[in-house]
Amino acid sequence: MKRTIKKIATATALLASVVVLASCGKNSAKNYSTTGSGNGNYQGVIQNGRYKTSKARGINVAQNDNQFNQKSFESGLTQVSKRVFSPKNYIFQEGQYLDTSTLQSWLARKSAKNPEGLNPAQGKKSDPNPEYVQQIEEQDYMTDNGRSMKLKGVVIGVGINSEYNYQKKTDGPSYTKKISQDEVRRQGEIAAQKILTRLRQKKALQNVPIVIALYKQAPDDSLVGGSFFAYSKNNGNKISGWTKLDYKTMVLPKASATNAQNSADSTDNDNFANFKSQIQNFFPNLSGVTAQAQYHNGNLAGMHITVTTQFYSQTEITSFTQYIARAAKRYLPSGIPIDIRIQSDSEMQAIVYRDAGSDTFRTHILDSY
Amino acid sequence: MKRTIKKIATATALLASVVVLASCGKNSAKNYSTTGSGNGNYQGVIQNGRYKTSKARGINVAQNDNQFNQKSFESGLTQVSKRVFSPKNYIFQEGQYLDTSTLQSWLARKSAKNPEGLNPAQGKKSDPNPEYVQQIEEQDYMTDNGRSMKLKGVVIGVGINSEYNYQKKTDGPSYTKKISQDEVRRQGEIAAQKILTRLRQKKALQNVPIVIALYKQAPDDSLVGGSFFAYSKNNGNKISGWTKLDYKTMVLPKASATNAQNSADSTDNDNFANFKSQIQNFFPNLSGVTAQAQYHNGNLAGMHITVTTQFYSQTEITSFTQYIARAAKRYLPSGIPIDIRIQSDSEMQAIVYRDAGSDTFRTHILDSY
Repeated sequence: MKRTIKKIATATALLASVVVLASCGKNSAKNYSTTGSGNGNYQGVIQNGRYKTSKARGINVAQNDNQFNQKSFESGLTQVSKRVFSPKNYIFQEGQYLDTSTLQSWLARKSAKNPEGLNPAQGKKSDPNPEYVQQIEEQDYMTDNGRSMKLKGVVIGVGINSEYNYQKKTDGPSYTKKISQDEVRRQGEIAAQKILTRLRQKKALQNVPIVIALYKQAPDDSLVGGSFFAYSKNNGNKISGWTKLDYKTMVLPKASATNAQNSADSTDNDNFANFKSQIQNFFPNLSGVTAQAQYHNGNLAGMHITVTTQFYSQTEITSFTQYIARAAKRYLPSGIPIDIRIQSDSEMQAIVYRDAGSDTFRTHILDSY
Repeated sequence: MKRTIKKIATATALLASVVVLASCGKNSAKNYSTTGSGNGNYQGVIQNGRYKTSKARGINVAQNDNQFNQKSFESGLTQVSKRVFSPKNYIFQEGQYLDTSTLQSWLARKSAKNPEGLNPAQGKKSDPNPEYVQQIEEQDYMTDNGRSMKLKGVVIGVGINSEYNYQKKTDGPSYTKKISQDEVRRQGEIAAQKILTRLRQKKALQNVPIVIALYKQAPDDSLVGGSFFAYSKNNGNKISGWTKLDYKTMVLPKASATNAQNSADSTDNDNFANFKSQIQNFFPNLSGVTAQAQYHNGNLAGMHITVTTQFYSQTEITSFTQYIARAAKRYLPSGIPIDIRIQSDSEMQAIVYRDAGSDTFRTHILDSY
């Protein structure tokens, strides 16, 4: 994976005297607030009326040739965090302890000039050592005692490549080395121990739990991101052991050549194929119906569906959206969050979605005055 | 307005034996069904498992250089229809009585070869007569007696230009003629009587109410569409009189040079400016916060807000969305439908919206696995 790290201007802390949105109550000296929560999400930290952005803001955008890996990594990391730090009790803060230049040196190859590099030296150009560690993200979890925010834990996500793309000559052909699941895990565990040791050297992080979660990157040409496969919650300096995570992502409908890996997969694929043919019959010129599916412990846990077609009027968009909401209820599995983006070319025209824990599909049409 | 009417292949009625989604109940011979309704929308007609598209499908796409005029015209026409044919009692069908070639000839200029043209002959090239009638759309309203659908009324929207753009020489400079509000109305009423007379000649339309609604097109460079200003419900051959409609659309925030037209406008603009500065303070790099506002009888009746910014992570998108939902509740007027599209570049990342009649803002984040 080519790594063109763009220089990102770290946002300097602006202490402009902007009004804090939330009323401050008794503590008028309090200069922070939160974004408010909703749908089981964390509240986020606002400082002096501004969102407190990450010290390594933007580094993941540059790290991923496949943007599905970025979104999936970041959302997946929050999913892991919720296992350890409940959104009911903790407030989310973008990572404040690892800055852009630190992460840039960690993510690069190890060398005399860069002893902190987590990736091995290149070796032979004709047969290079893979870069294993592709992205790292820090999340901080806080509590609010009414006067100040206090750090209660840090979660670090580490994305490990499942394949490594390289060129033997500049502008020459591209080669790919597959990296086995065992090797992905092994390299993740090695990186995790190094990261834990380094974080414990920071004064602020000596006594808080540090969670490290390992993510297997999807290949660059994948239409769905990778997934988290293990995490470790650590109170000391040594990795305390790993909890396995069984997440899997795939694209539906599956190419017919691909054999279903188990019968659950196969049923889900059939259901989706029914849904797809139903709406393709309904509407002329329908060009695409695809889904990203996530599995957890072998069961379908959520879907993001995209329907692309050419619409000729707002009334067509309205009718189609209503029809899709009805077909979704009838053909798609119940009990899991699903969203369906209805778009023409690349512009979204409507959204149909069902939240986790709900049995109702909501629709919203993107209209115009 | 240049008129490059693309040849649109009219969808031939496909009688493929696709399965009708809705269960047919007692009438197994019934070959139609509806899309299902929701949010006060009409049910739409499905025939033999397929959505029944308009006989003039796509003509409005070609008629409008400004796509805001198309969306606003079509949605506005449905709004007018709801005054006459309640979605509780009537089913919507895309127009089946005016086909593409009929509308093409009506929308063109009158000439020896095209006696049906609703627009005047060009006249002098250096000082041409404006083309007044820019777009026409038909909607049909039906009832279902359990065995078949029956036509109960037709609604025709007519879009009249508020300015006319022309060139004296091919590839020469562009000139604009403003068309006064009085002239827009007068031309609309003339076209309406001609259209009514022609429709009554069709056997199927001799005994149903025909509603004609007049729309004033926004200029080509407008960031919001035009609006409907009158409609007429007719049982006979002569236009029976006009009901005035007081809709107005505008873009917020208003340029400071523009004087507020009345104090209600000015308050709405101030509220929106507060909302805008609140979220611009909150988040770095915020590039744009604009709104389309619709007024009805002088009161703000709805808003479509677009917030464009550069996001660097999914956690930023989540936090920002929560914050916007809170700021919307606090700063934006209550009791009207509002949606807020949160996007980076041209890709939508999240939606925050409140439906008509609701006091809750819902949020949905467009995530990825």
